Amino acid sequence: MAETQPDALRVGMVLFPNLTMLDLIGPHDVLNTPRCKIDLLWHRIEPVPVQGSFSILPTATFADYAPPDILFVPGGPGQLPAMDDEALIAFVARAAQGAKYITSVCTGSLILGAAGLLKGKRATTHWASLDQLALLGAIPVSERVVEDGNVITGAGVSSGIDFGLVLTARIWGEAAAKTIQLAIEYDPDPPFTGGSVQTSEPEIVATMRARMAPLLEKRVATATRIGREKLGL
Amino acid sequence: MAETQPDALRVGMVLFPNLTMLDLIGPHDVLNTPRCKIDLLWHRIEPVPVQGSFSILPTATFADYAPPDILFVPGGPGQLPAMDDEALIAFVARAAQGAKYITSVCTGSLILGAAGLLKGKRATTHWASLDQLALLGAIPVSERVVEDGNVITGAGVSSGIDFGLVLTARIWGEAAAKTIQLAIEYDPDPPFTGGSVQTSEPEIVATMRARMAPLLEKRVATATRIGREKLGL
Repeated sequence: MAETQPDALRVGMVLFPNLTMLDLIGPHDVLNTPRCKIDLLWHRIEPVPVQGSFSILPTATFADYAPPDILFVPGGPGQLPAMDDEALIAFVARAAQGAKYITSVCTGSLILGAAGLLKGKRATTHWASLDQLALLGAIPVSERVVEDGNVITGAGVSSGIDFGLVLTARIWGEAAAKTIQLAIEYDPDPPFTGGSVQTSEPEIVATMRARMAPLLEKRVATATRIGREKLGL
Repeated sequence: MAETQPDALRVGMVLFPNLTMLDLIGPHDVLNTPRCKIDLLWHRIEPVPVQGSFSILPTATFADYAPPDILFVPGGPGQLPAMDDEALIAFVARAAQGAKYITSVCTGSLILGAAGLLKGKRATTHWASLDQLALLGAIPVSERVVEDGNVITGAGVSSGIDFGLVLTARIWGEAAAKTIQLAIEYDPDPPFTGGSVQTSEPEIVATMRARMAPLLEKRVATATRIGREKLGL
């Protein structure tokens, strides 16, 4: 990889414990060119334990990081405590003031919402959490990538690759996006039809909903409380 | 995420500096269920600097890790020195002896090849390195996921998601794979046609080939040398 360009955009990616790595890595690997200077942000410079086998190292702290050009928030089960992490939410709100693009993938949009950034905005999230966006004042949209002005949100987990390409095309043009698409050989070929509530078999959707029910119940409660107490909804 | 099951398969994922994160995370996030106990392997327990902004922490060392059920090797620019890392290659060869599945994504297959594991096997890799597989005794196949007995290889970078679903279906059945596909909302929708040499516009392919030429030249030289000196080809 060549050196970062002098006019590179600053990309600030928010970390938190128990985030889903693919939410973060899809966009990271699409944006990881000399056109971007990417930082991984957390309260302190210490390993952050995320979903699965990984602990990842931040490169900058919330306190020391000036608002980026692109603010990005991933999702994952840890989004729930992150919504109540006051310093994290304050950083997201502050960074968004100076950012050219305010973005998320998966339930990262619930964190944007908790920071009051989605009021009246069209936005998306993981299919199982779409209803919770409305509790934070957003207009939920069941699409893979949703753009409302400078707020760009992606659907669940793997949509981060599509999100990254949409953002790249918007900033640097279609040829830049298509070149990255070839570099990461993104001509997807899922072995099965499915992957969304619209395309998956009903029994697969029912299985996933049942498995996620306890988490979804907590997400609804948290979004309801934050919407009422902090956002005046 | 529930606790790992007592009969979980052991998944050993090889790390090396300058690997491509999406090569690793696609399969990791698909396999990250209670059915698997995933470890990240390196010479020492110390942060490994990978492509982009990340340093990642291994969970076990080559010396202390018994052959896994599933051996997995990602790719990325760092595959080149990894092919000449004698202790890493010796570990891969040794682990493969006891593994039920020997697997890779992207140029990870060149590392499998350098360990002598692809002789006479049908295999794939990143599109720009496909010719190099033959230098290591493999039969290059231009497909997204290639299975030859217990050797399963994926094409470039983002193919790791498809690879993970194919492997999941093979081991635990189609319903398991389809459920994960919905969990990660993998109903891909690339904003552009492309992503492979067959589907990308010719000028996009030419741009990428020119950009990768210096790296590809080194990869050909390394694969040729290892094929001759170590594999007797």
